[in-house]
Amino acid sequence: MAVRIEKDTMGTVEVPEGAYYGAQTQRAVDNFPISGLKPHPALVRATVQIKKCAAMANMATGRLNSELGNAIVSAADEALKGDFPDQFVVDPFQAGAGTSHNMNVNEVLANRANELLGGELGNYAKVNPNDHVNMAQSTNDVFPTAMRLAALDLGDQLAQELQELVVALRRKAIEFDGILKSGRTHLQDAVPIRLGQEFAAYAQGIENNLTGLTRTFPGLRELGIGGTAVGTGLNAEEQYIDLIVEKLSRETGQELSRGKDLVERMQNMEPLLALCSSLKGIAVNLIRIANDLRLLSSGPRTGLGEITLPAMQPGSSIMPGKVNPVMAEVTNMVCFHVVGAETAVTMAVQAGQLELNVMMPVIAFNTLFSLEILKNCLHQFTRLCVAGIGVNEERCRSYLDQSVGLATVLAPSIGYAAAAEVAKESAKSGKSIRQVILERGILTEKALDEVLAPFPLTTPGVHGE
Amino acid sequence: MAVRIEKDTMGTVEVPEGAYYGAQTQRAVDNFPISGLKPHPALVRATVQIKKCAAMANMATGRLNSELGNAIVSAADEALKGDFPDQFVVDPFQAGAGTSHNMNVNEVLANRANELLGGELGNYAKVNPNDHVNMAQSTNDVFPTAMRLAALDLGDQLAQELQELVVALRRKAIEFDGILKSGRTHLQDAVPIRLGQEFAAYAQGIENNLTGLTRTFPGLRELGIGGTAVGTGLNAEEQYIDLIVEKLSRETGQELSRGKDLVERMQNMEPLLALCSSLKGIAVNLIRIANDLRLLSSGPRTGLGEITLPAMQPGSSIMPGKVNPVMAEVTNMVCFHVVGAETAVTMAVQAGQLELNVMMPVIAFNTLFSLEILKNCLHQFTRLCVAGIGVNEERCRSYLDQSVGLATVLAPSIGYAAAAEVAKESAKSGKSIRQVILERGILTEKALDEVLAPFPLTTPGVHGE
Amino acid sequence: MAVRIEKDTMGTVEVPEGAYYGAQTQRAVDNFPISGLKPHPALVRATVQIKKCAAMANMATGRLNSELGNAIVSAADEALKGDFPDQFVVDPFQAGAGTSHNMNVNEVLANRANELLGGELGNYAKVNPNDHVNMAQSTNDVFPTAMRLAALDLGDQLAQELQELVVALRRKAIEFDGILKSGRTHLQDAVPIRLGQEFAAYAQGIENNLTGLTRTFPGLRELGIGGTAVGTGLNAEEQYIDLIVEKLSRETGQELSRGKDLVERMQNMEPLLALCSSLKGIAVNLIRIANDLRLLSSGPRTGLGEITLPAMQPGSSIMPGKVNPVMAEVTNMVCFHVVGAETAVTMAVQAGQLELNVMMPVIAFNTLFSLEILKNCLHQFTRLCVAGIGVNEERCRSYLDQSVGLATVLAPSIGYAAAAEVAKESAKSGKSIRQVILERGILTEKALDEVLAPFPLTTPGVHGE
Amino acid sequence: MAVRIEKDTMGTVEVPEGAYYGAQTQRAVDNFPISGLKPHPALVRATVQIKKCAAMANMATGRLNSELGNAIVSAADEALKGDFPDQFVVDPFQAGAGTSHNMNVNEVLANRANELLGGELGNYAKVNPNDHVNMAQSTNDVFPTAMRLAALDLGDQLAQELQELVVALRRKAIEFDGILKSGRTHLQDAVPIRLGQEFAAYAQGIENNLTGLTRTFPGLRELGIGGTAVGTGLNAEEQYIDLIVEKLSRETGQELSRGKDLVERMQNMEPLLALCSSLKGIAVNLIRIANDLRLLSSGPRTGLGEITLPAMQPGSSIMPGKVNPVMAEVTNMVCFHVVGAETAVTMAVQAGQLELNVMMPVIAFNTLFSLEILKNCLHQFTRLCVAGIGVNEERCRSYLDQSVGLATVLAPSIGYAAAAEVAKESAKSGKSIRQVILERGILTEKALDEVLAPFPLTTPGVHGE
Repeated sequence: MAVRIEKDTMGTVEVPEGAYYGAQTQRAVDNFPISGLKPHPALVRATVQIKKCAAMANMATGRLNSELGNAIVSAADEALKGDFPDQFVVDPFQAGAGTSHNMNVNEVLANRANELLGGELGNYAKVNPNDHVNMAQSTNDVFPTAMRLAALDLGDQLAQELQELVVALRRKAIEFDGILKSGRTHLQDAVPIRLGQEFAAYAQGIENNLTGLTRTFPGLRELGIGGTAVGTGLNAEEQYIDLIVEKLSRETGQELSRGKDLVERMQNMEPLLALCSSLKGIAVNLIRIANDLRLLSSGPRTGLGEITLPAMQPGSSIMPGKVNPVMAEVTNMVCFHVVGAETAVTMAVQAGQLELNVMMPVIAFNTLFSLEILKNCLHQFTRLCVAGIGVNEERCRSYLDQSVGLATVLAPSIGYAAAAEVAKESAKSGKSIRQVILERGILTEKALDEVLAPFPLTTPGVHGE
Repeated sequence: MAVRIEKDTMGTVEVPEGAYYGAQTQRAVDNFPISGLKPHPALVRATVQIKKCAAMANMATGRLNSELGNAIVSAADEALKGDFPDQFVVDPFQAGAGTSHNMNVNEVLANRANELLGGELGNYAKVNPNDHVNMAQSTNDVFPTAMRLAALDLGDQLAQELQELVVALRRKAIEFDGILKSGRTHLQDAVPIRLGQEFAAYAQGIENNLTGLTRTFPGLRELGIGGTAVGTGLNAEEQYIDLIVEKLSRETGQELSRGKDLVERMQNMEPLLALCSSLKGIAVNLIRIANDLRLLSSGPRTGLGEITLPAMQPGSSIMPGKVNPVMAEVTNMVCFHVVGAETAVTMAVQAGQLELNVMMPVIAFNTLFSLEILKNCLHQFTRLCVAGIGVNEERCRSYLDQSVGLATVLAPSIGYAAAAEVAKESAKSGKSIRQVILERGILTEKALDEVLAPFPLTTPGVHGE
Repeated sequence: MAVRIEKDTMGTVEVPEGAYYGAQTQRAVDNFPISGLKPHPALVRATVQIKKCAAMANMATGRLNSELGNAIVSAADEALKGDFPDQFVVDPFQAGAGTSHNMNVNEVLANRANELLGGELGNYAKVNPNDHVNMAQSTNDVFPTAMRLAALDLGDQLAQELQELVVALRRKAIEFDGILKSGRTHLQDAVPIRLGQEFAAYAQGIENNLTGLTRTFPGLRELGIGGTAVGTGLNAEEQYIDLIVEKLSRETGQELSRGKDLVERMQNMEPLLALCSSLKGIAVNLIRIANDLRLLSSGPRTGLGEITLPAMQPGSSIMPGKVNPVMAEVTNMVCFHVVGAETAVTMAVQAGQLELNVMMPVIAFNTLFSLEILKNCLHQFTRLCVAGIGVNEERCRSYLDQSVGLATVLAPSIGYAAAAEVAKESAKSGKSIRQVILERGILTEKALDEVLAPFPLTTPGVHGE
Repeated sequence: MAVRIEKDTMGTVEVPEGAYYGAQTQRAVDNFPISGLKPHPALVRATVQIKKCAAMANMATGRLNSELGNAIVSAADEALKGDFPDQFVVDPFQAGAGTSHNMNVNEVLANRANELLGGELGNYAKVNPNDHVNMAQSTNDVFPTAMRLAALDLGDQLAQELQELVVALRRKAIEFDGILKSGRTHLQDAVPIRLGQEFAAYAQGIENNLTGLTRTFPGLRELGIGGTAVGTGLNAEEQYIDLIVEKLSRETGQELSRGKDLVERMQNMEPLLALCSSLKGIAVNLIRIANDLRLLSSGPRTGLGEITLPAMQPGSSIMPGKVNPVMAEVTNMVCFHVVGAETAVTMAVQAGQLELNVMMPVIAFNTLFSLEILKNCLHQFTRLCVAGIGVNEERCRSYLDQSVGLATVLAPSIGYAAAAEVAKESAKSGKSIRQVILERGILTEKALDEVLAPFPLTTPGVHGE
C-alpha cells in the first residue's frame, strides 16, 4: 500500500497515501485493533457538527480567520453529507476519553479543508488539526458533547418507535376488548379479564417507558462544550461558549443549553447512565411482554393457544411445519443485550477520576449500540408481530368457563372459607365452579347466570351479594 | 412453647399461644426459614395504613359494619404506634407476591380487633382476616401499593440526606474557592483548576442525582389499589377505589392518585425499577466522588495529600498511627451493594407473567434495603467526612507550579506543536514549564508572570496571545 | 446505660460497662449505623478460629508467653462454643478492609482472656488486643482468611443441599421414566420426550453446578494468613506462617495451604468472585428449573397441568381455594437475589487498589448472605417441592397425541417439505398428525402404529424409513 | 438487483441471483435488520465443521449416499478455506435458537454441493439443505455445539494471550525485584514492599485466572450433538452420535465427548455462562491491575510517578506534550464491556424454557465478542504496555524513606500504642519515622540502621525486638 509520511509531536508515521486522516489516527489504528468495528455514524456526525459549529463560533469571535474557518465549515458539510464514509476508522475500543476519535475527525476535516484551499493531504501548513479544527476545544469537552448529541439523535428515533408500538398495542386493546378470558396469577387460574385489558395494560406500560426515556433527554441537552480540558474553559473565550451552544442547537434541532457547571459536565457521565437505565427499563418491560406473547401463543396443540402471532419464517431445520414466535424471541434477545450494556456503562461511569471520565468510548459504544438495536428491533416487532396478533376466542372462553378462579365471585356473599370449599371441590372433581355451585344449591341457575355473567366480572363491583 | 390450634382452608396449624398472627402466618414461617430477617418496618407500616384506609373506605360505602370497621381501625392505629413489634414475622424471602406478608397483617389486625371487641386470639367469628380486614383487597393490589408507600417514605428521607450532602459540598466549594491546584485528566498533569471548582462540581452532580431520584416519585404515587386480584377491580366497588386512594393520601401525606390503568399497575413493576435505577445513579456518582476523596487525601507521605479527611478511628490492627478514609470506604461499599441490589430487582421485574409479578417480595426487600443503607450511610458521610474535609494548600500550589499541563497556555500563541516541545523538555529535564519558557526566551519574565497568573487560568479565556 | 471509659490511640471512648468489646469496636458502632445487621456467625467463628490458632502458633514460636497465650485460647474456645452471642456488634457495612470486625474480635478475646487471668474488663495491662490477640497478624491477612474459611464452611453445607436436590430429582426421573409427553421448544409443539428424561436433565444440570461450586474451593483454601500488612510477612516469623496454616487446617477440618504468593492473596479477591459466580451459575439454573416447574404445573384449568406441586399454603387472600407454587417462587426470588449479590461482589472485587482490597466487608456480607439463603432455600425446595411432585399422566399423553411435532417422524422417509405439508394441514384443520397421515394414505394404520409408537421416539433412531 | 425465486415451506422468496444462500436465509435477512453485524467467523467455521462431520458420519452409517455426501464435504472444505466470505449474512440478533444461522449454512453448502454436482443455485433436487446437509441434525443440537466449538477455538487463543501476559509480568517481577518502595493500603502509607513483589502478585493473579478459564473448557467439550430436536436423538442413529463426536474431535483438534445427558446439553447453557463468568473474572482482575498501573504511573509531576508506561500516542488534542496510559485505559474499557456481556449472557441463560434455550444467538454473540476483544486487547496490552514498563527508582525510595508506615516495625518491641505515638508525631511534624525515633532516643542510629534496613522488611520476620 502506498503511504505518505506524516509527523506529529511524537515522531513520524506512515499513513495510507489517499487517506484524509493523518498521523494520530494511524497511531490509533495501530494501537487498537480490538473489535474491528467502526464508530457509529451518529457519533461521527455529531463530532463533525461540533467542529463545524466551533469553526463558526471561532470566526464569530474573530479568533479564526474566515478563509480557514470557511474551509473547515465546507469540509464539515461534506462529511455531514456522507462524503467520507471510510475515513473514520478508529476502533470504538480506543484510547481513553476518545482523543483518537476526536483527532480522526480533526485530521479528516483539516486535510479536506486544506485540499479545498489548494493544499495537499498531509500538509497542515494552512489548516492544522489541533490549532484550527480543534480550536477552543479539547477531546474532554468535544467527546462527551458528541456522545450526547448522538444519543439524542438516536433517542428521538427510539421514542418514535415506542410511540408506534403504543399505537399498535392500543389498536389491539380495542380489537380485543370483547374477548373474555381467564386471568392468571402465579400461572394459576384467577378471575376473569378481557384480552383487550391485557393489551391496554401493555400499551400503558410502554407509554410509561416512553415517558421515562424522554425524561432523560433534558440532562443530555445540557452540554459541557466550552469547558475544554478540565471544564474551566481555558483557551476558550467566554463568548465562544455561548456561541457554540447556540449554533449547535440550530445545527441539530435540539434545544441545547450550556451546562450549569462545566466542570461537572466533564467528570460526571450520569446523564448517559440515566439514559441507559431508561433503556434497561424499556428492555425489562419488553422482555415481560414478549414472554407473555410467547406464552399466550404457545401451541398450537401443547400450549395455551389463546392468541396467534404472525408466521414469519419456517421455525425448525428438523421439525417440518414448525412456526416459532421469532419476532418476540429476537426482542427478548435484543433486550437481554441492552440489560448487559447498561451494566458495562455502569462500570464505566463509576470509573471516572478527578477532572475526567476517560472511559467514555465504551460508554458511547454501548449507549449507541443499545439505542440502535432497540429501535431497529422495535420497528420490526411492532410491524411483524404486534400488528398481526390474532385471537382464538373460543379457547379463551373455554378456559374462562373452567377456571377455578371463578369461586372468587362467591366470597363476598358466602365468605372466603365457604367459597374455598367450592373451589377445592371443583379442582378435585374436575367439575366447573358453575356446576359445583348448582349441585350444592348455593345459587339457582338464574341467579348464577346473573352472577357469572362474565363482562361485569371484568370491571369493579361486588357481585352476588 | 404453648400453642393454640387454628384452622384455615387447608387444615389445622399450631400457632404460639399469645401470637396475634394466625394460621397462614405460621405456615409461612414454617415454609420460609430463609434469611432469618423480618420485614422492613416501613413495609409493615404501609400495609397497616392500607388496612386502616380500606376499613374506612368499606365503612363509607356501607359494606363493612362500623363495629367491625372501627375495631380494625383501632387495631391498625395501635400497630402504627408500634404496639406489635414482634408480630410481623414472615421472612422477606417468602411466598410469591407477598400473600404471606399480607395475611400476617390481616391476621394480626383481625386478632387485635377481635380482642378489642371482647373476643379471644384465634377466634375469627367476628372479624375475619380475609372477609373483613382484607375486604375489597387482594395481595395483588395491597402488596405493590405497600411497596410503593414504603419506598416513598424512605425515598423522602433519602432525598433529605442528599440535600444535606449538597449543602455540605457547596460549603466546601466556597471554602476552597481560592485554592489553586493542578487539574488531572487520565491521572496525568492537566491545566489549573481550583479545589472549590471540584467541590462545586460534586455538589452539582449530587443535585442532579436528587432531581433524578424525585423524578421517580410520581410513578410510585400512581397506585393500583382497588384493582384487587387481576387489576379489574372484581369484589371492589368503584366508589371504594377512589375513597381508599383519597384516605391513603391523607394518612401518608403523599399526593397519591388512582393509576390510569389498574391492570398495568399490577403486572408492571417498572416504577420500582426506575427508583432502583435512580438509586444506582446516586451510588455510581458517590463511588466516583468517594474514590476521588480517597485519592486526593492519599498519604500522608506516599500519596497526593491535597486534602485531609477527618480521622474517625484507628486504621489498622498492625500499623500503629494509621488513619484510613473509613467513611469514604463504607460509602463505596454501600454503593456497591446498591448497584447489586438493582440487578436483583432487574431480574425480578422482568420475571412478571401475565396478570401479576409474583416476585414482588424480593423487589421490596432490595428496594427498601438499598434505601435504608443509602440514607443511613449518607447521613454519616456528610457529617463525619465531607463536613470536616481540610486542605493542604501548599501541596496543591506546589503541584500546580510543577504541572506539565501549564504548557497548554502557550498553545494559542505559539501553536500546539511548539508548545509540545516545551512540555516534552519539561517532562524530560524535570524543569518547570515556567523555567523552560524563560530559558527558551519564549516570553519575558514579566509576560510570563502575567500569562501564568493562575486564577485567570481557571476561568474561560485565551491567554498569552 | 452505665459505661466505662476506654482509651485507644485516638483518645477516650465510652463503652457499655459489661461489654467484652472495647474502644475500637465502640467507635465502629458509632461510625457505622448503616444496616442494623450483625456479622454472620460463620464469619465470627472463622475469625475466632484464626485468633486461637495464631495464639497457639505464637506460643509455639516462643513469641507469646503461655500464660497469655493459653488465656487467649481459652477465651477463643468459649467464643466458639457461642458464649458471647451479643458481643460481635459491628455492622457488616463498616470500615474498609474489616479492621473494625477484626478489632471487635481482638477486644472481646482480650477482655475475656484478662478476665480469666483475674483482670477486669477494659484493662489491657496483661492481654492487649493489638499486641497479643492480634500478634503477627494484620486485618489485611486475617479478614480475607476469615472470609474464606466462613465461605468454605457454608459452601460445604450448600454442596450437601445440592447433592440432596440431585438425589430428589433423580428419584423423580426414575418415577417418571415411563411418562410419555410432547416436548416443547420455543414453547411450541415439538417431538416426544419422557417426563423422566426432563427430570434426569435437571438432575444432571444441578450435578454440573455442584461440580462448578466445588471447583472454586481449592482457590479458597489457599490462604494469605501470615502475609500481615501487605503480604510480605513483616512482623510475622517464617515459621509462624506454616504453623498457623497447619493449626487452622486442624481446627477447621479443611485442607488449607499457604498461598503461593501472599501478596497476591491479599490484593486479589478473585477466589471470592469465582465462588459467587458459581453461586450465580447455580441460581441461574434453578431459576430456569423453577420456571419450568411453575409452567408445567400451571392450571389447574387454564394452564398446562402436566405435573402437580405439593400444596403448601393458601395462595390468595382474595381468591378462595387458590394454591400457588410457593416453594418454586421463593426459589426464583432467592436466586434473583444471588444474581444481584454477585454483581455487588464484582463491583467490590474490581475496586482493589495496590496492596489491598479494602472493600472486603461488602464482599464478605454478600458472599455469606448468598450462601446462607441459597442453602436454606434449597433445603426447603427439595423437601417441600421436588420430593412431592406428582404427574397428570393422561394430560401428558393427550398433549403428545395431538402434538404437531409428530410430523418430524415422517421427514426421513417423505422429506422435510412433504412432512411440512402434513404438519400444516394438521395445524390448520385441528386434526391430529396421525389422522392426516391416515387420510392422505401416507401410511397404513398398522405401519403408523409402529412408526408412532411413542417410547422409541424418545430414544435415538430413525423411524418410518 | 437481479434475483431468483426460491420456494420454502412457507412460500416463495426473492433471493439475490448469485447468492449461495437461499429462501430461509433471505427471510431472516428481511426479518432481522437489527445490528447490521455478521456472524463471528469462528461460529461460521464451527457450524461448517459440524456439517462436514455430519455428512461423513451419515455416509458412514449408510444413510447418506456418497455422491451427495462427498459433495457436501467438498463444499464444507471450501467454506473452511474461506471461499464464501460474504455468504453468511444473518444478523447475530436473529430468530430464536439460531435456526436462521443454521439454515444459512445448510443453504450455502447445499447450493455449492449442487453446483459441484453440476446443478444450479436455487435448485435443491439433488442436495437438499434440510434433508441432506442438515441430516440427523436439528438447529437445537447444531447451534449449541457450534457455539461451544467456536468458544473453545477463541478460548484457546485467549489462554495463549494470558500466558504471554503472565510471562511479561514475571519478567518485570524479576527486573524490579530490587526496587524498594512503600506499600500502600487504603491508599495510605503502609509497610515496605518491593516493586517486583507487586508484579509477581499480578502475574500470580493472572495465572490463577488462566486456571479458572481452562477449568471451564471440559464442560464446553461435552457436546449435545446427536440429541437433535429435544435431546432424545429422534431421527439420528445411535451410531451416528458417536461417529460425529469422533469426527468433530479430529476436525477441531479438541478432545470432545458425547454429553452424559443430551437432553441436559440442549436445555442448559450453563457451560457458556461458566465461560463468561471466567472471562469476567479475568476482566475484573485486569481492571484492578490496569488501575494500579495507571495510578503508579500517574504524573509526571502531579502523581505518584513510581513507574512509567510506554508512550504510544499524543494524549490530548488541546494539552501539548501530554501522554496518557492509553493501553491500560483501553484494557479497562474492554474489561468493562466483558463484565456487561456476562450480564447479558446471564439474562439469556436463565431464560431457557423446557427442552430448549431459544436465546442462544445472543449468548453466542456476547460470548464470542468478549473472547475476541479480550484476546486482541491482551495482545496489545502485553506488548505495548507491560513489556515496556519502566521504574523511577529514586521516587520509590524517597516515598519509602518518608512513609509513616515504618512505625510498624517498632510495634513488636515497644508495643502498638507507643509506636502509634511515634507515627502520630511523624505525621504531624512532617519528620520521618527515622528522625522521630532518633530524637526520642528509642534506638541508637546504629540499631536503627539495622532495624530499618529495608530489604529484610519485605520478607517475613520480626525486627527490632
